[in-house]
Amino acid sequence: MKIVPDEKLDIQNVLIAWSDELKLDIILTTGGTGFAERDVTPEATRAVIEKDAIGLSVAMLTESLKITPLAMLGRPVCGIRKRSLIINLPGSKKGAQENFLVIKPWLNHAVNHLRENRAAVNATHD
Amino acid sequence: MKIVPDEKLDIQNVLIAWSDELKLDIILTTGGTGFAERDVTPEATRAVIEKDAIGLSVAMLTESLKITPLAMLGRPVCGIRKRSLIINLPGSKKGAQENFLVIKPWLNHAVNHLRENRAAVNATHD
Amino acid sequence: MKIVPDEKLDIQNVLIAWSDELKLDIILTTGGTGFAERDVTPEATRAVIEKDAIGLSVAMLTESLKITPLAMLGRPVCGIRKRSLIINLPGSKKGAQENFLVIKPWLNHAVNHLRENRAAVNATHD
Ligand code: NA
Repeated sequence: MKIVPDEKLDIQNVLIAWSDELKLDIILTTGGTGFAERDVTPEATRAVIEKDAIGLSVAMLTESLKITPLAMLGRPVCGIRKRSLIINLPGSKKGAQENFLVIKPWLNHAVNHLRENRAAVNATHD
Repeated sequence: MKIVPDEKLDIQNVLIAWSDELKLDIILTTGGTGFAERDVTPEATRAVIEKDAIGLSVAMLTESLKITPLAMLGRPVCGIRKRSLIINLPGSKKGAQENFLVIKPWLNHAVNHLRENRAAVNATHD
Repeated sequence: MKIVPDEKLDIQNVLIAWSDELKLDIILTTGGTGFAERDVTPEATRAVIEKDAIGLSVAMLTESLKITPLAMLGRPVCGIRKRSLIINLPGSKKGAQENFLVIKPWLNHAVNHLRENRAAVNATHD
């Protein structure tokens, strides 16, 4: 029973280091979003994000539900910590790819907003 | 004004007992998900779950929205406490049935994941 | 770096005053729902609501996603504080209008529920 809290803390520490020290634009996680006891990636993500990006979660879920109703068992959390966008993808290769394709075209735009790169943001809206 | 907090605590205590003591696989609630003051089922659920299952909430909401836009007033919370899956259904018989039909085919699969019954999980993915 | 926390507190104080003192039925916010550092409206809303109205968020997001995938960058929070319904709309005029049109036909119904105006609620269900 102690393994799970520790794993959650391990994930949190990685997310914090990659955001605060490496200052990554985007941090993608895969796996750990299921219903088993060891599946704590969304909880670790929730614990470290400062802002929830529910639109990304809803976009991935609704697109995945068009492919398979099994997608309803997904528990993605997406959000922002400092200038990093953290996104939970499913653990299966197929699911992770499908979800990534949904958000991929808009990640550059998201990062421009995060970094407050106004010239690039305005160009996309034109 | 004191009645509502007490009702919320009453619901929480039932959810905790059914999860921790009865060790139920699935706990379905109906009602109390509306906008009135006494509608505190989602808040009671949120207070006791350890993991949010947003995919179930989004699946029920998006399917219900195809039937009636009134579904946007739903406030379902779904999540996991220990090995129990807790799901908020609406209070109306029609709404509860419609929502339950959305998730029903996948509940067995969800429970297999919760109980880490790998043989059954793999069979479903084949 | 101090400006953002203060802005969040400023928004929270306005939401609290409009709910608790002015007792407004509906409080619409526009803007501050993006990915930039100053975008803290959802966090301010989350901090003051007593109940999450995820159905309204999912309805606005899924309808907006039909118009543009950029809607996935939305971070709306909708919820109830006392008898007031608080709804985050996007900052762009087009986005705010599109989102408002989704919820507009049902706001009167939502307020009747909030105010526990049973006669009006039953009439809508007939
Ligand atoms: Na949420």
